[in-house]
Amino acid sequence: MSDERKFERIAIIGIGLIGSSLAHAVKRHDLAGEIVIAEKSQEALDTAMRLGLADRGTLSIPSAVRGADLVMVCTPVGAFAEVGQVMQDHLSPGAIVSDVGSVKQSVVRDLGPCIPEGVHFVPGHPIAGTEHSGPEAGFAELFEGRWCILTPPPGTDRDAIERIASLWRTCGMMIEVMDAGHHDQVLAVTSHLPHLIAFTIVGTATDLGEHIQQEVIKFAASGFRDFTRIAASDPTMWRDIFLNNREALLEVCGRMSEDIAQLQRAIRWGEGEKIEALIRRTREIRRKLIDAKQA
Amino acid sequence: MSDERKFERIAIIGIGLIGSSLAHAVKRHDLAGEIVIAEKSQEALDTAMRLGLADRGTLSIPSAVRGADLVMVCTPVGAFAEVGQVMQDHLSPGAIVSDVGSVKQSVVRDLGPCIPEGVHFVPGHPIAGTEHSGPEAGFAELFEGRWCILTPPPGTDRDAIERIASLWRTCGMMIEVMDAGHHDQVLAVTSHLPHLIAFTIVGTATDLGEHIQQEVIKFAASGFRDFTRIAASDPTMWRDIFLNNREALLEVCGRMSEDIAQLQRAIRWGEGEKIEALIRRTREIRRKLIDAKQA
Repeated sequence: MSDERKFERIAIIGIGLIGSSLAHAVKRHDLAGEIVIAEKSQEALDTAMRLGLADRGTLSIPSAVRGADLVMVCTPVGAFAEVGQVMQDHLSPGAIVSDVGSVKQSVVRDLGPCIPEGVHFVPGHPIAGTEHSGPEAGFAELFEGRWCILTPPPGTDRDAIERIASLWRTCGMMIEVMDAGHHDQVLAVTSHLPHLIAFTIVGTATDLGEHIQQEVIKFAASGFRDFTRIAASDPTMWRDIFLNNREALLEVCGRMSEDIAQLQRAIRWGEGEKIEALIRRTREIRRKLIDAKQA
Repeated sequence: MSDERKFERIAIIGIGLIGSSLAHAVKRHDLAGEIVIAEKSQEALDTAMRLGLADRGTLSIPSAVRGADLVMVCTPVGAFAEVGQVMQDHLSPGAIVSDVGSVKQSVVRDLGPCIPEGVHFVPGHPIAGTEHSGPEAGFAELFEGRWCILTPPPGTDRDAIERIASLWRTCGMMIEVMDAGHHDQVLAVTSHLPHLIAFTIVGTATDLGEHIQQEVIKFAASGFRDFTRIAASDPTMWRDIFLNNREALLEVCGRMSEDIAQLQRAIRWGEGEKIEALIRRTREIRRKLIDAKQA
């Protein structure tokens, strides 16, 4: 990346898995002259500074964003409204505000009104993660080969969009630009519903008696294990995603509940052909995934 | 394994993923003097013989079981009643009939009445598998480090149980003996329900419009991909499992549907604390899995 495109100072607000991975990647690829972290947990901040993730760390968002030409909001999306209010009077003219939230309509809703005239707003979602959380979980390679969706509101400065796209490209990501509402629909299916289900099914198992629960753990290898891995993700982050993508999530969840009921009924009435037909069509989408090299 | 415990002739009925993996393992560990395969698909049989999985292959179950001191039934469980009827008059005195079916009460129900006086019956379930199927999918290491549950009916010959346990131990498995009904309850939670859900959710995505479906495939990496892998398993096998573990499966499925409805309601009404509490308890069971080295 040429020096003229390098950011002078990146402020990362919130140093969890994504924030810390971004700090690693920015350092590795020399994407900024200075990295400043704002984090509300003193413990997480101390950990991040001990790991050398930033040049400066602070508990104060205004102090972090002052003089930054890029502010990347990496907190759970439920905190965005507050983050926006706290930082709005301290953003530098010409700065870019972006984020990594897993929902985008609520980010436009919560952060958008806090962006002053002359500051650019490029909401983004790097689709990458692990089931681990916190500043120690981050690593520079997290983003490699994965998609990053940008959802700039109509009229957003093209150069600002390109600078954010370029940042994530340098981190190894592929870029897609789409409408925030469409993003939320797609992610409701690919990510939010699978997590909702994984949390639920692991909870259902937890409710069984202690005796059977121990055996569920012992014999988890046959399907259940994959669900528990998905369900190990950060609770606060997921609470916020569920609450902030409510409509799209309830829509696909309703569809799925109908489909479960249909399959339950077929099992109850011994309708083998119906069951098999349903199972067979799922192989088709798996094949498409393999063709798309996403499997 | 000492020669006195080696089987003279193992008949493997059905040469899918488990049957072919067993054939590989039997050869590698020299567990039998001779391996005979019975398979109803000429194509699968040809493939198995070309791969050198057996000394002899046949389309005739009577021909395969005649003279075998171990008959291992590896077909989908829906075929067990027919397999039992076809082979019952051809089993050798002193032989052991075992199986690898993922449900056990229905196996006792369907195969049990076909076992003549003087033949031993040791139902078993090696909990191992991949999302691939057919004779080319098998490999000897499939069973290593995994559990095998045996569900011998009361009064089963102890030596016969021990020989089957020893066979699977030599293949690398850990052995657990339990009641067939209890097995079916535990597996309903750890395996059958996760598969039912994975099939359903992938089907739900398939029902969405073509435009959104393509994007679901493109951005599958964030949870959905794990479900499609689970959902790629053999359709006939899973149809039979669902139909033959109906009661236990409908019971846990009903519990889960209630839990989904509860979470849906909390999302609809914006009950953040309730959502977070539900998510947090799933981490606990994940931690237990890690402690039990099943994660």
